[in-house]
Amino acid sequence: MKQVSVLFVCLMLAMAGVAQNASVYPGNWWVGMKYNKVQLMLRGDNADFKQQQVRIQYPGVKVTGVHTAENGKYLFVDVAVQPTAKPGTVAIELTGTNKKKQAVSWPLLARRKGIGTNYARGVTSEDFIYFLMPDRFSNGDTTNDHVAGMRDQSLNREDIGARHGGDLQGIINHLDYFQRMGVTALWLTPILENDMPERTEHGYAFTDHYAIERRVGGAKMYQQLSDELHKRGMKLIQDAVYNHTGSYHFLAMDPPAKSWFHQWPSFTQTNFKEQPIFDPYASARDRSITTDGWFVPSMPDLDQTNPYVANFLIQHALWCVEMFGVDGWRIDTYIYNDLPFMNRCNKALTDEYPRMTMFGEAWVGGTANQAYFAENNINTGFKSNLQGVVDFQTLFTGIKPALTDTASGDGVQKLYNTLSNDFLYKNPMRNVVFLDNHDMSRFFSEIQEDPKRQKIGIGWLLTTRGIPQLYYGTEVLMKGFSNPDGLVRLDFPGGWEGDTRNAFTGKGLTATETAIQQYTQKMGIFRKNSSAIKTGKLMQYLPAKGLYIYFRYNAQQTVMCVMNTSGKEAAVNFSDYAERTNGFTKAVNVETGSIEHTGSALTVPAMSFTVLELKK
Amino acid sequence: MKQVSVLFVCLMLAMAGVAQNASVYPGNWWVGMKYNKVQLMLRGDNADFKQQQVRIQYPGVKVTGVHTAENGKYLFVDVAVQPTAKPGTVAIELTGTNKKKQAVSWPLLARRKGIGTNYARGVTSEDFIYFLMPDRFSNGDTTNDHVAGMRDQSLNREDIGARHGGDLQGIINHLDYFQRMGVTALWLTPILENDMPERTEHGYAFTDHYAIERRVGGAKMYQQLSDELHKRGMKLIQDAVYNHTGSYHFLAMDPPAKSWFHQWPSFTQTNFKEQPIFDPYASARDRSITTDGWFVPSMPDLDQTNPYVANFLIQHALWCVEMFGVDGWRIDTYIYNDLPFMNRCNKALTDEYPRMTMFGEAWVGGTANQAYFAENNINTGFKSNLQGVVDFQTLFTGIKPALTDTASGDGVQKLYNTLSNDFLYKNPMRNVVFLDNHDMSRFFSEIQEDPKRQKIGIGWLLTTRGIPQLYYGTEVLMKGFSNPDGLVRLDFPGGWEGDTRNAFTGKGLTATETAIQQYTQKMGIFRKNSSAIKTGKLMQYLPAKGLYIYFRYNAQQTVMCVMNTSGKEAAVNFSDYAERTNGFTKAVNVETGSIEHTGSALTVPAMSFTVLELKK
Repeated sequence: MKQVSVLFVCLMLAMAGVAQNASVYPGNWWVGMKYNKVQLMLRGDNADFKQQQVRIQYPGVKVTGVHTAENGKYLFVDVAVQPTAKPGTVAIELTGTNKKKQAVSWPLLARRKGIGTNYARGVTSEDFIYFLMPDRFSNGDTTNDHVAGMRDQSLNREDIGARHGGDLQGIINHLDYFQRMGVTALWLTPILENDMPERTEHGYAFTDHYAIERRVGGAKMYQQLSDELHKRGMKLIQDAVYNHTGSYHFLAMDPPAKSWFHQWPSFTQTNFKEQPIFDPYASARDRSITTDGWFVPSMPDLDQTNPYVANFLIQHALWCVEMFGVDGWRIDTYIYNDLPFMNRCNKALTDEYPRMTMFGEAWVGGTANQAYFAENNINTGFKSNLQGVVDFQTLFTGIKPALTDTASGDGVQKLYNTLSNDFLYKNPMRNVVFLDNHDMSRFFSEIQEDPKRQKIGIGWLLTTRGIPQLYYGTEVLMKGFSNPDGLVRLDFPGGWEGDTRNAFTGKGLTATETAIQQYTQKMGIFRKNSSAIKTGKLMQYLPAKGLYIYFRYNAQQTVMCVMNTSGKEAAVNFSDYAERTNGFTKAVNVETGSIEHTGSALTVPAMSFTVLELKK
Repeated sequence: MKQVSVLFVCLMLAMAGVAQNASVYPGNWWVGMKYNKVQLMLRGDNADFKQQQVRIQYPGVKVTGVHTAENGKYLFVDVAVQPTAKPGTVAIELTGTNKKKQAVSWPLLARRKGIGTNYARGVTSEDFIYFLMPDRFSNGDTTNDHVAGMRDQSLNREDIGARHGGDLQGIINHLDYFQRMGVTALWLTPILENDMPERTEHGYAFTDHYAIERRVGGAKMYQQLSDELHKRGMKLIQDAVYNHTGSYHFLAMDPPAKSWFHQWPSFTQTNFKEQPIFDPYASARDRSITTDGWFVPSMPDLDQTNPYVANFLIQHALWCVEMFGVDGWRIDTYIYNDLPFMNRCNKALTDEYPRMTMFGEAWVGGTANQAYFAENNINTGFKSNLQGVVDFQTLFTGIKPALTDTASGDGVQKLYNTLSNDFLYKNPMRNVVFLDNHDMSRFFSEIQEDPKRQKIGIGWLLTTRGIPQLYYGTEVLMKGFSNPDGLVRLDFPGGWEGDTRNAFTGKGLTATETAIQQYTQKMGIFRKNSSAIKTGKLMQYLPAKGLYIYFRYNAQQTVMCVMNTSGKEAAVNFSDYAERTNGFTKAVNVETGSIEHTGSALTVPAMSFTVLELKK
């Protein structure tokens, strides 16, 4: 642990801006990175800072360029770190017009050991992601609930828009809980500083890219979470936001240049429509509103075509992965970014960390629309290099209609149809499938709070193709609608001391909640040990009368999934699926352990999900 | 006309099977075709026909192979027609095992003059297609209403499922009517013999590929229609059916081999689902039911993977185009065919007739699904060479919701969205756009018989991208639902002597019907003279509040289309569409001739469609 401590001292020094009157971003770098031409952003106190002369006298580190900005407080310094450079503290020597000298410390660290083997390993279909909001999951350290001087002092668990006090320590305290469920990766809403006056619980409004939010525990705790996860063989996914900053970010309040953010004569919000991006008939007007319009007034929209902005964001991404050993990268509001920039950024990450994976939020309507933003099989002028997307389609036109449009039986046909369009993706196994998240109504509420349907949803999530993502509390039937009250970010029961209901211990849960939690655990663990589900193929049969049957299979294992979305018990003849059932004589019910014989018909109850492992 | 007469005598001789006890298919061929290796199907009276020795002594014509079939009545003879061969009558000399000789005449004709310039020119976005059912459009020759000996003797205009007596002469009589509307191409439901016992009005159940249905006028009249159209610069589209025959086809009743048709242990209908064809996860079972299941019991499903079947169908297609000077080719039930066969077949047509165009019926759900069956920008294992499809998507998720889901304003957004997915097609301008056809409810009925909406539909049809197709009678508000009564194939008013209502003369039409007919004519003629609409680009703007604005434009012309699907009058500022309106000062309303000034706002009524030609 000694090395880590040293690393953190260095980091803290850099982040606090030790250098007299000047800060540097990124606050440090590493020796031996492939990305070794770093553009430092220096920021001073006043408008003549740009007149500084810059010099570095450190073996293997060279200044290759100095660029002033519209705003005199900023100076951009291009630095080349040669492969021969050794760890140590680089002094960036600055000389003002008044001949006054100062030095900014810029640590060059040794790289984290185990990158690519223990860290930055990528999150794949072999994983099971648990997605949570640190502020809402568990409060493990009450000392960080209030942080003096920060703008949002709203701490109040009764108010859905206020801070609730959850933190990284709370997560660390419950790693066993995740593991019991077969979870292998955690995705947290962003943990970078959000020093905004309100609604800071979600974390998507950064105010300093190089500060970890202190109210969740700060950089050291984030590092510790990463280490604890990796000790257990688990993985860490970071939630990246390139599109915008919070309006209280120093870059927004005092930007290096106006051109860092998209400027509009009056506030212009994005149209929230993806079509202008790929529509062959789109107007430049609509396209510009889509990508350059702001997400919300409190989130200024970064102009990633500005090369300084692009460098700043790319370096920050690399810095986070290297500093915290991040394994997977989730990218917020992917479609509103400048896509050529995103390609550069994604490539920078995989160039440096070949096993790293990324998935983007492409909240769009239609599989072709969604596939456009990922690596796909479509020849268009623009080709995305994003490996996967959060798969809104298998939710919107998939599992949701399958479990709500049940009267006609058409619902489950939609799920089948949606998957049939996977020919558009280069690798649909890299898509993240899910039932709900922090922006949408809880799945349990969407399906009229029917535990049978919830069970089907979870069963499907853990057996279909792709990387499953469970939103915290779905396993214990947490509910709520995104509209009108937004009660989809409620506290996880048991996360706070004194909670009367505790999902970690089971105390106070209803029998139904416990049953669904146990089912999730059983299926999660089954998945963890199932090569067919994790990396095998999928075969799906045309649904009929609400009955949808699919298989996950490889040479070692065949898993048969029977989803009955009808209101009637159904009989399933194994021989109707001979391509996959031939050669097997038995079928072990994964949930109950009971053994079926493939020679006889299987009866499945109305509105049920049955997972069978076929045996010779 | 002399040449044609000779040609027809030859044809008739061949088709009647002059040769003692043997028929040959195709009944003739031509000298100088690129396709000059023809596989003749010879059919004799009894099961030892296959024992014939075959000889041809004709300069430049050689027998290159003889193949027997399971059914002894058939013999397949491969014939090579060398480029040096001259027109004349080839004698196919047959010698039986009893040494008895006979000769089957096989005329080799000179090719039609003007192929590729007057004929087989292709149907493109410069055209406007009128689609009609010959039996239901106009009865120009009552002498062919009954044809003795044919199985269906149902003639009765009161019965929607019976024959009504319409024919090709009826169409020829009204060519002026089409031209007044700007129509440039006619697509007829199939005109090949359908000697079925019932429901012969649609023509999709062929009983002889080489006989033109006598009840619509036979081969000579079809030839005449083709000539009359071409004299006017108009085009002829033939409706091709490769997937199946009628159950009374001699090939079905007495097939050369069982393998000519897909055989099932018991009747198995296609699942009518396209997904198994492209779904990466499809089972072979579902795929086989999709393509090999029968369309209906009365239409045996041809196995196009049988090379004899494939040759038979391909040669028939070429024969029709050459014989009748067909310009465009519509392919029925495209998705249920064997797609590699379809590629071969399509290529044979374009190899022979480079300007010929084809479009297929791909009645599917979703643009990606539809694009899969056309030339597209998707890299998949299979690549279709079909140039265009009947565009069900711009109907189902386009103009129909635009005019029915009007309360929310989301409807027209769907139309916009659907077009935005055109990036999937290689050339979406080759798709045939339409409002209704013989299989679906009349558009006017779908939109609650609202003439305002009908006007929008027709206006859109004639200004959007692609090749517009109008179903007969849509211009005079013909109505009816496909379910339950199927009254979507009613007689065109005025097509029969004594009709009280006559859409050709206007007699008995309501003022509203006349107004819509006149609007169709005005827009059709405007389109005919509009290079921007026929071959220009499209730019569409994001709809807002039910208002959808798009432009068709090229260097010579800019046409602005304003579709207001809301219940409120709307104001349109030309400057909001500066990319397309800059540089213009006036806007001429195509319908009314009134002139707007682009400096002022344009007011458009609730539920209206306004087409403006911009002027400097």
